[in-house]
Amino acid sequence: MTNVPLSGQRLWDSLMEMAKIGGTARGGSNRQTLTDLDSEGRHLLQRWAEAAGCTMTVDRLGNMLLTRPGRDPSRKPVAFGSHLDTQPTGGKFDGVLGVLAGLEVMRAVHEAGIETEAPLMLINWTNEEGARFSPPMMGSGAAMGIFTEEEILAKQDPEGKTFGGELARIGWQGDADPAALRDLGAYVELHIEQGKLLEDAGKSIGVVTQALAQNWLEVTIEGEEAHGGSPMAGRKDAMMAAAPLIAAIEEIALASVTPAGEPGRATVGRMTVYPDSRNIAPSRIWFSIDTRHHDPDLLARMAEEIRAKAAAIAAQRGVRITVTDFWYSPMVPFDPVLVGRVRDAAERLGYPHMDMPTAIGHDAVYAARCVPTTMIFCPCHGGISHNEAESITPEWAEAGMRVLADAVLATAGIARG
Amino acid sequence: MTNVPLSGQRLWDSLMEMAKIGGTARGGSNRQTLTDLDSEGRHLLQRWAEAAGCTMTVDRLGNMLLTRPGRDPSRKPVAFGSHLDTQPTGGKFDGVLGVLAGLEVMRAVHEAGIETEAPLMLINWTNEEGARFSPPMMGSGAAMGIFTEEEILAKQDPEGKTFGGELARIGWQGDADPAALRDLGAYVELHIEQGKLLEDAGKSIGVVTQALAQNWLEVTIEGEEAHGGSPMAGRKDAMMAAAPLIAAIEEIALASVTPAGEPGRATVGRMTVYPDSRNIAPSRIWFSIDTRHHDPDLLARMAEEIRAKAAAIAAQRGVRITVTDFWYSPMVPFDPVLVGRVRDAAERLGYPHMDMPTAIGHDAVYAARCVPTTMIFCPCHGGISHNEAESITPEWAEAGMRVLADAVLATAGIARG
Repeated sequence: MTNVPLSGQRLWDSLMEMAKIGGTARGGSNRQTLTDLDSEGRHLLQRWAEAAGCTMTVDRLGNMLLTRPGRDPSRKPVAFGSHLDTQPTGGKFDGVLGVLAGLEVMRAVHEAGIETEAPLMLINWTNEEGARFSPPMMGSGAAMGIFTEEEILAKQDPEGKTFGGELARIGWQGDADPAALRDLGAYVELHIEQGKLLEDAGKSIGVVTQALAQNWLEVTIEGEEAHGGSPMAGRKDAMMAAAPLIAAIEEIALASVTPAGEPGRATVGRMTVYPDSRNIAPSRIWFSIDTRHHDPDLLARMAEEIRAKAAAIAAQRGVRITVTDFWYSPMVPFDPVLVGRVRDAAERLGYPHMDMPTAIGHDAVYAARCVPTTMIFCPCHGGISHNEAESITPEWAEAGMRVLADAVLATAGIARG
Repeated sequence: MTNVPLSGQRLWDSLMEMAKIGGTARGGSNRQTLTDLDSEGRHLLQRWAEAAGCTMTVDRLGNMLLTRPGRDPSRKPVAFGSHLDTQPTGGKFDGVLGVLAGLEVMRAVHEAGIETEAPLMLINWTNEEGARFSPPMMGSGAAMGIFTEEEILAKQDPEGKTFGGELARIGWQGDADPAALRDLGAYVELHIEQGKLLEDAGKSIGVVTQALAQNWLEVTIEGEEAHGGSPMAGRKDAMMAAAPLIAAIEEIALASVTPAGEPGRATVGRMTVYPDSRNIAPSRIWFSIDTRHHDPDLLARMAEEIRAKAAAIAAQRGVRITVTDFWYSPMVPFDPVLVGRVRDAAERLGYPHMDMPTAIGHDAVYAARCVPTTMIFCPCHGGISHNEAESITPEWAEAGMRVLADAVLATAGIARG
């Protein structure tokens, strides 16, 4: 593979160029899905990929497929990529690294005149983040049959705008069938770790073997409004019921530990308060819970414990608490052959590496439902992500990109170079 | 006073008529300050009061002053009233009872051709509720010099509209000087209790002797965003710091008890979460605290304990917690002569009554800073208020109105009837 003219500098320059689209004062990017800035980022990727000899197809969900033909027409495409959309206060690398490292593979292969046996396909999935339209990973999820196209197109953002309407408005609704992606030959995704296990261990490559199970819940607490001057004794204050429940959710996650010492994870990221007045004890609180675990059984037990605690608080305080399922992602093992290729590539290239799971949902986790799939992790400083301060070194980016190239080309096979 | 033709039925009919303006499907009223509906309610009151021989003046803050001259030009006006504005999910009686009971006094005096020694003045104060423009009791507060006119006119609602702009838009900015109200001869306000002490004790009149001290705070917690899949150990999660702090605020209030057994009161009625995404541990939480107490020293100690708990949680979790003062209302004793007149009137009219403080801010509490003032409480079912289900009986409304009329006319003096 030494004849593939991969450039870490060119990758880094492209990352910095893309980050300017939606760039924030604090050094991050706000390029939320299906906005004008998302469209601008997509056009830049299109120009770059077409200059590297790729042909673009866009499917009905806006997934961008940038392909380069292979020698053998009977081979299925070997795909790689990630997403260009960001959180409202996102960083420069989450998703973008995987797309632009894939672009660098395309550029190097094109420059060197390499022909692969199988076609290569770089994918930019629509709405991985789920920040504007929830849930996350809509483009890959609908392609892989987890969601229907119809339900995704009808999803609304907080302003009531639909996914389908916004996709058409920004001009990125194509006519390809997203379900065709279930027939890919392989899918490999490079992504920043969004944790600090690699950095703490001094490794530059994470060989991702599986995806942790995730369980997202919603909680609604219904009490009674009471004036701030009324005695507390008779109140059914939804906020005062929410506080101990959220504190218990943290305790439940930390106490749910695998034999290997891995605790669960719980996040309460959204809350709404009604009627939202300083001198009224709230009658209704809604909040989200995101729970994750190495062990699906412990994850299920966490939800049971949260429901039991909610029932106890409801009984004690005379409020009604409803805990509903919002989204579930099972534990997903990655393809052992591809995992082995990533591990071999890191070993051969001399990069310190370790096996690890992903605790985070990725397009690769949905792709794995239908396609032989794996992921490569790159460290990020302090594990900070979904944050404008998200940062990686050019060396880490290059290592990830070289391992990606190695695994992808080993899978696709080189006809001539 | 038997020659004053007060009508409980007419009062009740007027309450029901006013409640239709902004009436909600669940039987409450949404007539928030400085909205078109507020203007409609004001016009109805103006028509009714003018038909009862009153002359209207409006001051620069929109306070409506409906006056009837007295015989003695040297006497200062004896004022009474309350407010017509409501919470977003308000009831039919909070504020409205005091205004329309005052209207009934004017109607009866007019019908009977009674001349009082001192002028009578019915007041509808602007923005008592503080729901749309915070803090509450702006019209009375600025009239009494607690706020400046300029700061009140510049206050913004959550949409960024100013108090002054909205007051002008609905056509209720007059040219009278609100500071002239500091020179009233007396102010008496009838209001629903917004608690259930009267109902539980089987009393129909509360003789209000003082206002409890109130202390409103704001809390900002600054942590760090973290992805929902990251290990919890390294997080600085603002939500997970807010939950135990809010739980502690409840405990602190309940544990702060006077020798007579009265605990403090604490309400967390508003919260905002940033960046408000399901899979991001929040980096910033803001919430309001409303604390009240019979004992100003215990109220101050509650704030100290809340600050100490915030500091402990901040240190333990590596987040920054700022607790700032938002609004303070001292313990306010009411005028002993007026308190005595209310007690005497209830006694003479045969209504079961009890002395009590108000735990809730009212326009009367600000008026008491400059003017001899007192309040009369009427029971409300279950103590429920700031709620569409707020309810009272016609008999309670009539009892409060008759005590108000008695105390007002005893203070103003009857020249002829």
